[in-house]
Amino acid sequence: MSERNFREMLERKWGEGKFVCVGLDSDLSKIPQTAKKPTVFETMLAFNQAVVEATHDLICAFKPNIAFYAACGESGLLALKYTIGFIKVFDPEVPVILDFKRADIGNTNNGYVAEAFEYFGADAVTVNPYFGKEALKPFLDMKEKGIIVLCRTSNPGAGEFQDLKVGGYTPLYQIVAYNVAEAWNSNGNCAVVVGATCPEELAKVRKIVGDMPILIPGIGKQGGDVEKTVKAGKNSRGRGMMINSSRGIIFAENPREETEKLHNEIKKHP
Amino acid sequence: MSERNFREMLERKWGEGKFVCVGLDSDLSKIPQTAKKPTVFETMLAFNQAVVEATHDLICAFKPNIAFYAACGESGLLALKYTIGFIKVFDPEVPVILDFKRADIGNTNNGYVAEAFEYFGADAVTVNPYFGKEALKPFLDMKEKGIIVLCRTSNPGAGEFQDLKVGGYTPLYQIVAYNVAEAWNSNGNCAVVVGATCPEELAKVRKIVGDMPILIPGIGKQGGDVEKTVKAGKNSRGRGMMINSSRGIIFAENPREETEKLHNEIKKHP
Repeated sequence: MSERNFREMLERKWGEGKFVCVGLDSDLSKIPQTAKKPTVFETMLAFNQAVVEATHDLICAFKPNIAFYAACGESGLLALKYTIGFIKVFDPEVPVILDFKRADIGNTNNGYVAEAFEYFGADAVTVNPYFGKEALKPFLDMKEKGIIVLCRTSNPGAGEFQDLKVGGYTPLYQIVAYNVAEAWNSNGNCAVVVGATCPEELAKVRKIVGDMPILIPGIGKQGGDVEKTVKAGKNSRGRGMMINSSRGIIFAENPREETEKLHNEIKKHP
Repeated sequence: MSERNFREMLERKWGEGKFVCVGLDSDLSKIPQTAKKPTVFETMLAFNQAVVEATHDLICAFKPNIAFYAACGESGLLALKYTIGFIKVFDPEVPVILDFKRADIGNTNNGYVAEAFEYFGADAVTVNPYFGKEALKPFLDMKEKGIIVLCRTSNPGAGEFQDLKVGGYTPLYQIVAYNVAEAWNSNGNCAVVVGATCPEELAKVRKIVGDMPILIPGIGKQGGDVEKTVKAGKNSRGRGMMINSSRGIIFAENPREETEKLHNEIKKHP
């Protein structure tokens, strides 16, 4: 088996017209009673397996957010590890993004690199830009992995720092996008995060980063609009987007139906 | 037993003239062969217990960085959990800062709050400001806990974004310090992180945040100067500092001696 390369896996999925990313934000307190198993580990793993089986052929990536697993201690983290292992065996063509938004000084990031890629076996991670490129080198050096940098996040208060005008003109999030595209991406493994809740900012970032992949959370429960997102987010080849929905899919009555709905809505706006 | 309140615990330690914070960055690959036990869990826990026993009465806080434990998967994380449990029994007066630099959107931060305070039982955490106050509310709402916000970090490339001049005048890290002091701290539980590697920035932040606690990493292996740090970092009451050394203490031949050395050096500059 050849090594998994995140960007190549993603391009193959885009080639099949797949842009939905399913966020495995498997909050234990939201998993229905009827799906509960004897242990936390079994409950979370079985819940995820059902979502993966129902959605894997319609999507471009899975994206578990580690916070929901870490909340349950080692049982949750083992469920996450086994979920990623399950995805890689069940459908080896779907990449897995570990959404963990980490960043520390360089020396310390080695620990997070080991956690993400050795222990969990993820294909990509999200990271926070605040420490700068120099600190994130241990991540950026992982050529086969995707390094997805927070740029403009989807939360209502994201603008507190991200929209501040640097030098009086350029919002911070645009500087982040520019630096990632121009200076951080020598291995071609970078991507950025921009929320679907801010389509104007998404369009600005698309102009700055060229054809770079953009992870776009905020569709579904957070209120992002699909048409505006696709128009603002697609790249020059009509690709470049990982459009994430988490709660709106995984806690739906029928996760496959919700995934298909989002998939079809995206395809309406070529 | 009354509830542990981070700020009160810290003030008591400062009252005893203790300002050293010992960073339990217990990188498995740096733990000497002679200290190795049959399992990773036992090795990390025993190593930490020895450091805790040797240093606890000289310091104001312990600060394990979770990255070094997460690198070893669930065994490492269990060692971290048991280390924190051990500290709280062995010396209930020393607060424990979980250095995890987390941040996500609000809903998701609930998971990290559960991880830090319920699962690990920490007294304080470090968080990343990039998402803004609104997202970090689940942390800021924890009145008894310390919420320590990254401001100016100690790594060589920290300035890439943190030093950018907002509006043409004010570096981003100063805006972070200002917002934390003026708008985030309604529960009186906030603190900020400024590296000892940049004493001028530390002095600026001290002016902005008043008497708020500042966590100061970067002493020791990272090259920060103790005299400059104390001059720039102390507050109007000659307190307010958690001066962290990690590798320089825990991997020393004699951790107690190194801690005493730093403790005495700090006391030379009242």
